[in-house]
Amino acid sequence: MKKSIGAENCLYPSPSVIVGADIKGKANYITIAWIGILGHKIIGMSMNKSHYTNQGIKENKTFSVNIPSVKMLKETDYIGMVSGKISDKSKLFKNFYGSLKNAPMIDECAINMECELTQVLDIKSHEIFIGNIVETYCDDKFMTNGKVDLVKVQPFFFSMLEPAYWSLGERIGKPWSIGKDFLS
Amino acid sequence: MKKSIGAENCLYPSPSVIVGADIKGKANYITIAWIGILGHKIIGMSMNKSHYTNQGIKENKTFSVNIPSVKMLKETDYIGMVSGKISDKSKLFKNFYGSLKNAPMIDECAINMECELTQVLDIKSHEIFIGNIVETYCDDKFMTNGKVDLVKVQPFFFSMLEPAYWSLGERIGKPWSIGKDFLS
Repeated sequence: MKKSIGAENCLYPSPSVIVGADIKGKANYITIAWIGILGHKIIGMSMNKSHYTNQGIKENKTFSVNIPSVKMLKETDYIGMVSGKISDKSKLFKNFYGSLKNAPMIDECAINMECELTQVLDIKSHEIFIGNIVETYCDDKFMTNGKVDLVKVQPFFFSMLEPAYWSLGERIGKPWSIGKDFLS
Repeated sequence: MKKSIGAENCLYPSPSVIVGADIKGKANYITIAWIGILGHKIIGMSMNKSHYTNQGIKENKTFSVNIPSVKMLKETDYIGMVSGKISDKSKLFKNFYGSLKNAPMIDECAINMECELTQVLDIKSHEIFIGNIVETYCDDKFMTNGKVDLVKVQPFFFSMLEPAYWSLGERIGKPWSIGKDFLS
């Protein structure tokens, strides 16, 4: 039976990513899952105003979105536990920069998206950062025939419901195709 | 070796959901995956301006986010293939309404979130709808001890990369906890 359970956000699990920004000329990172695609090359993400990383994004008008593999689960969780105000997280990884020059990226992550900030929305406790992807980087060990291969990337997800991290399952169907069976 | 692959959006896979809105007093639905959490009770989603559903969301200032289980994969894909302009999708499901009165929800979906529109951002080809969740509904067969159980819900994900739908894997760790191992 369908039940009302209050205004609970059940849009979980959501991709777990590491956002990077330079602050005072030094790389800093934060783990978030309140992030989504807004356009083919547009990303939106929501970050509590208390986070140190917000400052760097607003100063430089750039940021990066780094997608870790399951094997980086512990590091990813750690980055979400400790503030850059008190810990130098730039030393945890091999950092690299791309064309924007000040959006730090994590070499160890499977995928890195370098983004240019286009808009900031203020929603009381959080800031919503909207940015255009200007370049994407992927290690060829995570690609097959020159294309990103999610089986190799092994991204993972975060859910506040349990809370828990979740792994990716299997390919279960082809979009704009499997639905044709529903018609017949 | 890390390679530049152009400005490719790799924030996939993303939760596959069915968005509902009344249009001219009749329920309509669309499948989307460009959606994300912006706050504990806030959802943001991006929809091409050509979609019929956008009209209803703007007229009523309400919408619903319905989370289908894997067993509804074919129906979900179908809803994303056919426009409400030419097909009456209200007849595909048992529709129900909640406190907002005009945000249609799909009884067959595991979870339904009834939302109130708070903001619309225009980004050329797409409109970004931001809304507050006012009530969430879940069938008790998808819950354990009164809480939403993702193992029972079996949400699934969409990726433009292949393109493909992907299933959920397994619980792999506890947030704000497993990262402590990284410290030791």
